[in-house]
Amino acid sequence: MPPVIILIRPQMGENIGAVARAMSNFGLSELRLVAPRDGWPNEKAVEMAAGGKEIIENATIYADFASAMADINLAYATTARHRDMVKRTASPAQAMAEITATQSLKTALIFGPERTGIENYEITLCDAIINIPTDAKNSSLNLAQSAVIIGYEWIKASSECEVGARENSYENLPAPKSDMFGLFDQLEDYLDKADYFRVAHKKPIMLQNIKNMLIRGAWSEQEIRSFRGMLRSLWERSK
Amino acid sequence: MPPVIILIRPQMGENIGAVARAMSNFGLSELRLVAPRDGWPNEKAVEMAAGGKEIIENATIYADFASAMADINLAYATTARHRDMVKRTASPAQAMAEITATQSLKTALIFGPERTGIENYEITLCDAIINIPTDAKNSSLNLAQSAVIIGYEWIKASSECEVGARENSYENLPAPKSDMFGLFDQLEDYLDKADYFRVAHKKPIMLQNIKNMLIRGAWSEQEIRSFRGMLRSLWERSK
Repeated sequence: MPPVIILIRPQMGENIGAVARAMSNFGLSELRLVAPRDGWPNEKAVEMAAGGKEIIENATIYADFASAMADINLAYATTARHRDMVKRTASPAQAMAEITATQSLKTALIFGPERTGIENYEITLCDAIINIPTDAKNSSLNLAQSAVIIGYEWIKASSECEVGARENSYENLPAPKSDMFGLFDQLEDYLDKADYFRVAHKKPIMLQNIKNMLIRGAWSEQEIRSFRGMLRSLWERSK
Repeated sequence: MPPVIILIRPQMGENIGAVARAMSNFGLSELRLVAPRDGWPNEKAVEMAAGGKEIIENATIYADFASAMADINLAYATTARHRDMVKRTASPAQAMAEITATQSLKTALIFGPERTGIENYEITLCDAIINIPTDAKNSSLNLAQSAVIIGYEWIKASSECEVGARENSYENLPAPKSDMFGLFDQLEDYLDKADYFRVAHKKPIMLQNIKNMLIRGAWSEQEIRSFRGMLRSLWERSK
């Protein structure tokens, strides 16, 4: 069962809308608001929600955090700040793995108000803290950013969207792109002169396919030189 | 080395600022802008950047995408839309694992303009596509959301610092090896006749290098046919 999103005392309608948008992007649907500062409904929230408009319309309002949590089995408080609290901490991915592993439990992801974040006494009511990793020099994430990350980890955990993997290794260093661009120019010039692109309007898509297949090799500078040498060799014989 | 962020024709200064903010949150610092719509510097970008102000101040401007890419060894195009293009696709996590596994390569993460996203001819110049998983019902991520996710996966990957197997996926099937062998035979025949292998005892190692670089693209049957068609085209002109 997808987790419920609970926003505690959200301030800006725009941010509530941005959370709903992110929820919709990543397959979440149930939104609960605890004492939104500017009342409810909120026009700004609808405007910012984009594809998440329906989530805003169906959001439910609670006077206090405890009521919003009443039917929740497992609650995770989201924060980027380190908390001096004895509480289990999970990464976003770990938390989502735990949630997807539950079958019939009702779970919730909790976000605090924009300015202050979730209060320690509210974190206390949660089962664990989700700590979003950030750079120590600037750890301040806004509400919408946090919701995007949490939503993204949810869709990763809940879907099998990873495509079949294949091993790869770069045995030598791929050249700077300008080297490949030079090769492309040379090849196009030869092919033009050889009348390879018979049907003029097909030339762009043909060139696109050729570039796609050639760039996929991640050739080194040496390899690009070899390839251009081969082209030149074939070409010069033709004179 | 942390990847460079390249924004192609970004439109709103606010969005450039939001990208810089996310970069700063997740430990990225080098920002390149290709032909920003509203010119540069941009006051709105500075306002939105919050802790990423310095990134905005140090951003470099390029007239076209190819110049911004000139020194890049390995480039990833970010998109939420499915592209009908033969190009390796990686999840954000896979791509960041690959980037952290490189030691001295200059890597770049590319984002297209807000309205249209990155164009196919620009994706062609990249080595792979990063596909951000979204809900099929609402897959439209904005620029700031995408940058948050990519930055977040970067800090995860770079702090875990798992150097090991790099995983790939190919959307089309690499052809049976015999198809490549047929291509090799044709190429060797032409190169022999063009007197490409001037020093006889070097021919085996030269051929080996050529085959290594060509096979690395894991070309499909169609691509091998295209490549052989190009060779034939160049060759037949010489008659």
